[in-house]
Amino acid sequence: MVDNKPPEGAQKTESKKALKKEAKKAEKAQKKAEHKGSNQKENVAVEEDVSAGKYGNLPLIQSDPSSIQRIFTYIKDLNKSLAGNTVWVRARLHTQRARGKQCFIVLRQREFTVQALVNVSDTVSKFMVKFSSSISKESIVDLEAKVAEVPSGVAGCSQSDVELVVSQIWVVSASAPQLPLQIEDASRPEKEDEEGLNIRVNQDTRLDNRILDLRTPTNQALFRLEAGVCRLFRDILTKKGFVEFHSPKLFQQHPRGGANVFTVSYFKGSAYLAQSPQLYKQMAIAADFEKVFTVGAVFRAEDSNTHRHLTEFTGLDLEMAFQYHYHEVMLTIGNLFTEILKDYAISTVLKSIWLANSILPNHLPSWTHH
Amino acid sequence: MVDNKPPEGAQKTESKKALKKEAKKAEKAQKKAEHKGSNQKENVAVEEDVSAGKYGNLPLIQSDPSSIQRIFTYIKDLNKSLAGNTVWVRARLHTQRARGKQCFIVLRQREFTVQALVNVSDTVSKFMVKFSSSISKESIVDLEAKVAEVPSGVAGCSQSDVELVVSQIWVVSASAPQLPLQIEDASRPEKEDEEGLNIRVNQDTRLDNRILDLRTPTNQALFRLEAGVCRLFRDILTKKGFVEFHSPKLFQQHPRGGANVFTVSYFKGSAYLAQSPQLYKQMAIAADFEKVFTVGAVFRAEDSNTHRHLTEFTGLDLEMAFQYHYHEVMLTIGNLFTEILKDYAISTVLKSIWLANSILPNHLPSWTHH
Repeated sequence: MVDNKPPEGAQKTESKKALKKEAKKAEKAQKKAEHKGSNQKENVAVEEDVSAGKYGNLPLIQSDPSSIQRIFTYIKDLNKSLAGNTVWVRARLHTQRARGKQCFIVLRQREFTVQALVNVSDTVSKFMVKFSSSISKESIVDLEAKVAEVPSGVAGCSQSDVELVVSQIWVVSASAPQLPLQIEDASRPEKEDEEGLNIRVNQDTRLDNRILDLRTPTNQALFRLEAGVCRLFRDILTKKGFVEFHSPKLFQQHPRGGANVFTVSYFKGSAYLAQSPQLYKQMAIAADFEKVFTVGAVFRAEDSNTHRHLTEFTGLDLEMAFQYHYHEVMLTIGNLFTEILKDYAISTVLKSIWLANSILPNHLPSWTHH
Repeated sequence: MVDNKPPEGAQKTESKKALKKEAKKAEKAQKKAEHKGSNQKENVAVEEDVSAGKYGNLPLIQSDPSSIQRIFTYIKDLNKSLAGNTVWVRARLHTQRARGKQCFIVLRQREFTVQALVNVSDTVSKFMVKFSSSISKESIVDLEAKVAEVPSGVAGCSQSDVELVVSQIWVVSASAPQLPLQIEDASRPEKEDEEGLNIRVNQDTRLDNRILDLRTPTNQALFRLEAGVCRLFRDILTKKGFVEFHSPKLFQQHPRGGANVFTVSYFKGSAYLAQSPQLYKQMAIAADFEKVFTVGAVFRAEDSNTHRHLTEFTGLDLEMAFQYHYHEVMLTIGNLFTEILKDYAISTVLKSIWLANSILPNHLPSWTHH
């Protein structure tokens, strides 16, 4: 399935009804602007808004099938090869900066960013530029624009060789004007920066506003890295003949192992949270599964506030019967790690963390494998 | 990696030292047999054991690198194309039946079974046949044999067009002579069988001896089916651009949802077990992950002893942002189910359950997809 295709049955052109609605909205905005102008007695001649119906706030459509249906292009796919094409993009408004008759916008989607330009012209009114500069950061916008090559490159954007020349801009979902943290500040690398601002976001602010913090390129990349490691762990072991299973997390009896366990009120009695799938892995081997693995939550009741102790984490676990020598297991595990580390998908994600430049040094670690 | 290859560095021929050991063992067994014969005063002439060194109990090798290293063939791979070849098989002794100078053995590996024949001949002594018939069921044995075609078919074995003509038989790990349940009995289909025995194994016996019960073909197939469904769920969604994530299972605050939750003693306070990853899925969407899924344990504190209520189960969960209409989500989910059901791997596993003939009717369900 191509990502940016609309679902089956979607109308490829905007419906007349919706267009009408939009036009009305824009007219209203225009009138408002005019009204404002007259109030301030700036003696501005009443101008016609050449962009009427091309910007504004989209109404809540509530899955109304007669609403507009646009085909969106992902920011990650914007590059020189699309130069000259007109595209629709739905993304977060990351930052914007108004400068005279222009408004520069940075749009963000996952870890990808692109610059968009709203520039007064025959078809773009100063009302539209003003509207663009007033949209609150983190709002979701729909933007119609022509892709334009930027030979000199756009600094600070992941898509640096193109920019978008905007012809329509609509706010799909406006964010609050004041946010508890700025994604820009949260995305700033930890390393010293001689020039420019060095605003940091504290850990507690990040955790209190986890949804915003997770929007930073580093966190986007970290979650993808985690998903990639789990996927490779499973794929490689499945290819080697391992069977995935899900072990119970609630134990009836207190396990006699070394780790501390959590007690759960289990109706009239007590149960305990599993601190490892060990018992079940071994049962699976005795039950002739031969090679098994499991990925799941494990719990440790260790009251240590260090970042090396977690009361809960996701465990990647395997168990296998060997024929003659425990080296068979060690070879399997060694090979598993090599395969995971050399996989292209993972190195791509590592690269995107590296681009985020926030938690890794300026070069990728290298490893050897055979 | 080919399944039945030994790890790197494994010796392909049996080491002399180990062979010597084996021979000694067999000699001992022979002497014992002779001794027994003389005790019973059966007036048997002292025979030479032509099979000395070709059967017996293998010593515990404890990862000793100088021990024997054999290349094993999986039972599932035994078929006509191997007829005439000599193979080594390591498997459970499922059942055996001695009949005069012959001992018929059924070997089992996962859900696959094959018949093996120990037949008195120039190279196989009656001592060896006797030894074979005395091995306790569920013992793990190493068996050297020639693959022989059986044109009439072997009833009751998954590999019905071949049998193994045994030249060596070694017990790697002997099971207890008395087992709490017979795999054969536990494997018997629920349906009425007019002829033959109808011994059933009760649910409590099965659960008290879960390791043995899990060796039945039906349970082997069920676990593989579960693993297959999870794999397809993940693969299909990943292809559609979803990101897997792992949600916390311990909540700090009592969720106000409908389901009952378990309380966990959390150091000096209390925590609650997650009855759904719902909150975290929605946080991920608000954090611009766009499409996410998770596979993991969920907990429901519902004190209902029905097989439709479980206090703990593995949940397959997804969440996605849609652009215009909730039908986009419904189409994704519908397509996901179709893809899972039509996948060859799953239908193969369903077929093996059907072969086990125990939980499904005599025909596979059919489904339509587009």
